[in-house]
Amino acid sequence: MSEPTPPTDGGIGTPLSPGATRALLLGGGELGKEVAIELQRLGVEVVVADRYPNTPAMQVAHRAHVVDMLDGDALRRVVALERPHLVVPEIEAIATDVLDEVARPGTRVVPTARATQLTMDREGIRRLVGEELGLPTSAYRFADSREELHAAANALGLPCVVKPVMSSSGKGQSVVRRPDQLDDAWRHARTAGRVTADPDASVRVIVEELVEFDSEITLLTVRHTGGTSFCEPIGHVQSDGDYRESWQPAVLPDGVLARAQDVARTVTQALGGWGVFGVELFVVGDQVLFSEVSPRPHDTGLVTLVSQDLSEFALHARAVLGLPVGEVLRIGGPAQGAAASCAVLAEGYGVPAFSGVDAALAVPTAQLRLFGKPEVRGRRRVAVTLARGADVAEARARAVAAAEALTVTLG
Amino acid sequence: MSEPTPPTDGGIGTPLSPGATRALLLGGGELGKEVAIELQRLGVEVVVADRYPNTPAMQVAHRAHVVDMLDGDALRRVVALERPHLVVPEIEAIATDVLDEVARPGTRVVPTARATQLTMDREGIRRLVGEELGLPTSAYRFADSREELHAAANALGLPCVVKPVMSSSGKGQSVVRRPDQLDDAWRHARTAGRVTADPDASVRVIVEELVEFDSEITLLTVRHTGGTSFCEPIGHVQSDGDYRESWQPAVLPDGVLARAQDVARTVTQALGGWGVFGVELFVVGDQVLFSEVSPRPHDTGLVTLVSQDLSEFALHARAVLGLPVGEVLRIGGPAQGAAASCAVLAEGYGVPAFSGVDAALAVPTAQLRLFGKPEVRGRRRVAVTLARGADVAEARARAVAAAEALTVTLG
Ligand SMILES: Nc1ncnc2c1ncn2[C@@H]1O[C@H](COP(=O)(O)OP(=O)(O)OP(=O)(O)O)[C@@H](O)[C@H]1O
Ligand SMILES: Nc1ncnc2c1ncn2[C@@H]1O[C@H](COP(=O)(O)OP(=O)(O)OP(=O)(O)O)[C@@H](O)[C@H]1O
Ligand SMILES: [Mg+2]
Ligand SMILES: [Mg+2]
Repeated sequence: MSEPTPPTDGGIGTPLSPGATRALLLGGGELGKEVAIELQRLGVEVVVADRYPNTPAMQVAHRAHVVDMLDGDALRRVVALERPHLVVPEIEAIATDVLDEVARPGTRVVPTARATQLTMDREGIRRLVGEELGLPTSAYRFADSREELHAAANALGLPCVVKPVMSSSGKGQSVVRRPDQLDDAWRHARTAGRVTADPDASVRVIVEELVEFDSEITLLTVRHTGGTSFCEPIGHVQSDGDYRESWQPAVLPDGVLARAQDVARTVTQALGGWGVFGVELFVVGDQVLFSEVSPRPHDTGLVTLVSQDLSEFALHARAVLGLPVGEVLRIGGPAQGAAASCAVLAEGYGVPAFSGVDAALAVPTAQLRLFGKPEVRGRRRVAVTLARGADVAEARARAVAAAEALTVTLG
Repeated sequence: MSEPTPPTDGGIGTPLSPGATRALLLGGGELGKEVAIELQRLGVEVVVADRYPNTPAMQVAHRAHVVDMLDGDALRRVVALERPHLVVPEIEAIATDVLDEVARPGTRVVPTARATQLTMDREGIRRLVGEELGLPTSAYRFADSREELHAAANALGLPCVVKPVMSSSGKGQSVVRRPDQLDDAWRHARTAGRVTADPDASVRVIVEELVEFDSEITLLTVRHTGGTSFCEPIGHVQSDGDYRESWQPAVLPDGVLARAQDVARTVTQALGGWGVFGVELFVVGDQVLFSEVSPRPHDTGLVTLVSQDLSEFALHARAVLGLPVGEVLRIGGPAQGAAASCAVLAEGYGVPAFSGVDAALAVPTAQLRLFGKPEVRGRRRVAVTLARGADVAEARARAVAAAEALTVTLG
C-alpha cells in the first residue's frame, strides 16, 4: 500500500476508486457543507468526521464518522482508516496534537498543523501577532484565576472583555463594565468555555480592553500556489459573540483597506499553508486593530455565496488542492453591487421545520441555505438568507426581510 | 389538467427526520449532481436511483438505490420505500407508466408524468408540437421497417436524418445523403437505439429533413409558481449527436428571440408542471424551428453555472419545490459578459484520472466540474470546463483552452 500523494501536482483521481483524492473534514457544519460541495465538484472524495451524526456536511459527503474530536486516539483511528491526502479542520475543538502527527509527506493538514494549533488558542495567536509580529491589537492580559483576573482588569482598566482562551462563537465571553461583574465573568468563562476532554482542566482567560471600534470587518485572505489574494472587505454585526449580519463590500475610510491587507498578509504569512483565512479586524478612525483569525472560511463570508463568482468555499477548495485561484469577480454590476447575509437562529429544543420559504424567496434577489441541522438545543444558527442590492443598505434590508419571512418551528 | 400541488406550501422539513421534504432523482448523472446540490442547499432530503452504483449525483445524495429503471416493479418498490414528495426524472430510459401511478396528491412527478412520457418519445413530442400545436418543425415521417424507411426518405427527399424514436445523446442516429445509406441507417437505429426491457421490441424511427440551420440554440424555460421565465439563449455545437461546446448569450437576428420565446412558452405550457425545460430550436434566417425539448435541465445549460447567479439547476430546484424563481442575473458585466462551456470526453475503458487541473484552472476565469464518474466504457463525458469573456469568442476560446489543458487517463 503506497502512501497517498498530496494533490499538488494538478492531478485528481476518481472518488471511491484506489486513485481517489481524499479529503477528511474535521467538523462538518454549514461552512463544511459548502466546502464539501466545492470539493465534490472538483471530483474529490469527501469524508466528514464530527461528534454527532447527520451534520450538514455529512449529508453531502461520500462517508462520515461520528467521533469525539477531542479524543486523540479516536481521531488517529479515523485518519489511519481513511488515509486522507487533505485533513481540513472546520472547528477549533480538535485534539490538535494529532494534527502534528498526521502531517507528513502525503497528508497535508489545512492550512498547517501549527496554524490550527495557534489559532484555536487566543493566547497563541495574540503572542504571535501582538508580540512576535508587533501588529496593533487591543491591549490584553492573561489570567488563570479569579485573583489574576481582578489584577488584569485593574491593569487594563474597564470596560474590558473576558474570554476563555479556548472558545469560539462568543462562548464564555463577557463584557465587564464594573468591578463587581468580574466574579460573574470568571464563573461564566469557567462553565461556558470550550468543553475539554478533561473536566478538571484549569481555565485560562484573556482580558482585552473593550475597543470602541467604528466598524469591524473580515478580510478573507487566500493563500494559494500563486501567492496571496484578498476578497473585498466584509462588514458585519455581532451579538452575543455570534454574527448576525454581514455585507460586502464594507465601506472603509481612505487608506484603511491597504492597512488591513498589510495586517492580513503578515498574519497569514506567519501562519503559512494554503487556504482561505478569515482575518477579523477592528477599524478605529483610520487605524486597524487585529482581533482574531480563522484558518478556514469564515461565517461572515457566507455572503460570498451571492457576491462572488467563486465563493470563499470554492476558493478554499482550489487553494487547499494547490490549484490556481484566479481573479475573483464581484457579482452584480451597478444595480446589485452590494450583497448581504443574515443569520437565521432557532431557539429551544427539537427538530427544525421551516415555513415561509416561499415568502423569503419572493424578496428580490433573495437566496437561502437551509443547513439541515438535525436538532436544536438552546440557540443555534439553522439557516442563512442572502441578497444583493444597489448598495449595502438595500442588500441588508433584503437579507433581513427574507430572514423575517422565514419561520422556524422546533418539533 | 390542474397545476400540481406544491409538496411544501413554502415549508421544508429537516432531512432524515420524519418531517423531511424528500426528492427521488431517477437517474443521477452530472446534471443530477448539480440538481442534488441545489436541493441539499434548500434542506431537501435527496435520494438517487440509477442503474449503477456511485453515479455523480449519488455522491452528493443522502441515499442511493441501484435499480434497472426500465423495470417497473423495481421502480415501484423504490417509490414505495422512499415515499418521495418529488420524483425527478433525469434520464429518458424510465418505465414511465410507473410515473403515472405514483403521481398523486403528495407526490409530484417533475414536471408531470405526461410531460416525461411525451418527451421521451420523439413521436409523442412531434405529434404534440407539429400537429396539435401547429408550430414549425422540420418535415418528418415515421417508419417501422426498412421498407417504410425507404418510402419515408423518398417522400421527404435527401439528405435526411434517421433517429430511433426512443433514444438520446445521438444514439442510433444517422444522416443519410444517398439512398444506398438507408439500409445502414436502419441497422444502426435497430442496434444502437435505446435498450428496452424487451429485446425483441420493434424499432420505430423518425425520418427528418436535414435542416440547413444557421445556428441552433437551447432556450432554458422555467415554469414556476409565478409564471414562465426565460434564460438568455444558449448557442451550442453538436458532434455525433452530443454537445461539445455551449455559450450564452447566443446572438440572434432581430425578432428571433421573441419568436423562440413564443415557441418555448407554447410547448412548455402544453407539457405543464413546474421546472426547467431545455427547448432546442434551429434558427434558419429569421425563422425558428422546434427540434426537441428536455423536461429538465439541459446539458448545454451547464454554462449557466458561471453565467447566471442562479444556474439552471438552482432554478430547477426552486421551481419544482413550488418556490419563487425571481429574476435571473447575468454574471459578468462588460468585461465578462459572455460565458461558455466545453465538454471533456474520455474514450476507452477504465477509471478516469485527471491531470493538468492546475493548468486548466490557470486559464483566466476558468472553472471546472469533474463529475466523478466511476468508469468509462466507450466514449463518455467526464468533465466540463467553464469560462467567461468579453464576448462569446473569448469565452469559448478560454473554455476550450481549459479543456485542452486537462488530460484524462483511464486506468
Ligand atoms: N476587545 C474587544 N473590543 C471590542 N469588541 C470585542 C472585543 N473582543 C470581542 N469583541 C466583540 O465580540 C465579537 C466576538 O469576539 P471574538 O471574535 O473574539 O469571539 P469568538 O468567540 O471567536 O466569536 P466568533 O467565533 O463569532 O468569531 C467580536 O466580533 C466583537 O464584536
Ligand atoms: N432534422 C435535423 N436537421 C439538422 N440537424 C439535426 C436534425 N436533427 C438533429 N440534428 C442535429 O443533431 C443533434 C442531435 O439531435 P437530437 O437533439 O434530435 O438528438 P438527441 O439524441 O436528443 O441528442 P441530445 O440528447 O444531445 O439532445 C441536434 O442538436 C442537431 O445538431
Ligand atoms: Mg470572532
Ligand atoms: Mg437534442
